[in-house]
Amino acid sequence: MEIQIEIVFALGAALFAVAATYFLWAYKKDFNSAFLVSFITIISYTLMLEGSLVSDGARGGEVYVTRWLFYGLSCSLLMREIASFLKKSQSETFFLMFLTVLVMGIGAAAAYFDGWYKIGLFVLSSLAYILLIYPLLTSISPHRNAVAKYLLLGWTGFPIAFLLAPDGFGIITASTAAVLYLVLDIFTKIIFYFDLRRKMEAGIA
Amino acid sequence: MEIQIEIVFALGAALFAVAATYFLWAYKKDFNSAFLVSFITIISYTLMLEGSLVSDGARGGEVYVTRWLFYGLSCSLLMREIASFLKKSQSETFFLMFLTVLVMGIGAAAAYFDGWYKIGLFVLSSLAYILLIYPLLTSISPHRNAVAKYLLLGWTGFPIAFLLAPDGFGIITASTAAVLYLVLDIFTKIIFYFDLRRKMEAGIA
Amino acid sequence: MEIQIEIVFALGAALFAVAATYFLWAYKKDFNSAFLVSFITIISYTLMLEGSLVSDGARGGEVYVTRWLFYGLSCSLLMREIASFLKKSQSETFFLMFLTVLVMGIGAAAAYFDGWYKIGLFVLSSLAYILLIYPLLTSISPHRNAVAKYLLLGWTGFPIAFLLAPDGFGIITASTAAVLYLVLDIFTKIIFYFDLRRKMEAGIA
Repeated sequence: MEIQIEIVFALGAALFAVAATYFLWAYKKDFNSAFLVSFITIISYTLMLEGSLVSDGARGGEVYVTRWLFYGLSCSLLMREIASFLKKSQSETFFLMFLTVLVMGIGAAAAYFDGWYKIGLFVLSSLAYILLIYPLLTSISPHRNAVAKYLLLGWTGFPIAFLLAPDGFGIITASTAAVLYLVLDIFTKIIFYFDLRRKMEAGIA
Repeated sequence: MEIQIEIVFALGAALFAVAATYFLWAYKKDFNSAFLVSFITIISYTLMLEGSLVSDGARGGEVYVTRWLFYGLSCSLLMREIASFLKKSQSETFFLMFLTVLVMGIGAAAAYFDGWYKIGLFVLSSLAYILLIYPLLTSISPHRNAVAKYLLLGWTGFPIAFLLAPDGFGIITASTAAVLYLVLDIFTKIIFYFDLRRKMEAGIA
Repeated sequence: MEIQIEIVFALGAALFAVAATYFLWAYKKDFNSAFLVSFITIISYTLMLEGSLVSDGARGGEVYVTRWLFYGLSCSLLMREIASFLKKSQSETFFLMFLTVLVMGIGAAAAYFDGWYKIGLFVLSSLAYILLIYPLLTSISPHRNAVAKYLLLGWTGFPIAFLLAPDGFGIITASTAAVLYLVLDIFTKIIFYFDLRRKMEAGIA
């Protein structure tokens, strides 16, 4: 039995509404990225639930291109946090954030276009992603291992889900993909702040 | 007798052209936001006058979605000025500018979509707006009262006009709304720099 | 005999792929703008090659609006480099980058719209461009002449090509314009880094 995709999107919006409220109350920093990331994600799920910006995948299934544009916003804020943990310079932080926006923007184009263009754009986006995470995985920092686990188990799940979803080869349905993306969103945008970020701030991770 | 909306838009473009020219000549700062804000507003009025990006409101009347996207650009620059008056940190300034872009982006989505989505997105945008202005209204600064008057009388006029306009419930016509928005634009983007900004810089306000 | 426009775009994508690879290997700075500019240009050429975002010019020929949006990204990074050579303050650098994005965004609108709107938007974009380069051409810096030659021979070629191309008056075909743009792209985005940038860094220019 197929899960209704609207339920997944509504659940996503509700969950991130709770997370945004909690982070608003719990975090009292000058730049409350935990709140912003969850707030951006509510909007992303709301637009996917509304559904009029969806496009048809060439191999069947629905492609939600806007998802990747919102990841451009939220993930550049997550990257700002990661760069700050790893004590990157302001200049390198800006570079990493810029590259994150490119990875997601090219990903959106890969989801939208078809055939060889889809494959070519996906390859370009993946190359940019490797350039993005490689310097982070090889940083000299006590937080390196914690960051590596988070990136490799969390962020790297997205391009894999992309390939399986109607965004890519359409091996799984849009609904199954939506569940997969939601689990990854929870891990990378909520648990990240609850767990890893707190540990890193306490100097444990 | 209904005012022709094209006249309002042409008047807006002309007025902000004069303002941009004046601010270009009068302000000699490294970052001339007064000029940029007026210049962005010329473009916004020009595109509304051209008219091909307009959409039909569900309750009748025309909805100019691009207006809100241009506010995202101009109001984040205004927020930068306000944050600077209130001596906010660089990090908090960036947070406030980012949130301003979100308020306006979600507002554009609220103007574009209909029914419960319009209402839901308007509520989300308003919540973000409250989060934006609350820390400004409660700042410990000699400029707090001047900023509060400007935000409450000027900025807060926009969501009210939105609700009345075809953007929202369509109680007033698109032309009447255009006049209302123009008055608010003059107050928040021209008089702001002439009056409040000058006072604050002189340490009077 | 007319050159096939697809060949020009494919050549552009291939050339900037080589350049991006080289700059990735050769430049080891915190903020590798040389790589980013070339990488952004690959994407721009790929989307023009794909062709589904093209629009018809009023005077015949194809108009590639997305080109100007990608220039907004790449040229603001080039402007960051130029501002850094000329030892501009962080605040003025941000102003110049913001203005660069506006010049290209308004240029995209000028390419898209027709008639008096095209002309009006082109004039506004050109005015913004003059405001952008005037303070650079009159900077007190040992690098002023080198920057002036680069801007006047390179950047200023773009609005001229725009006027001749289907983007503007449609005097030359889209294919001829594509060749012209490609030559300018190579000069301003590859040779710039190879030649001028290296000279300036060595203190020769």
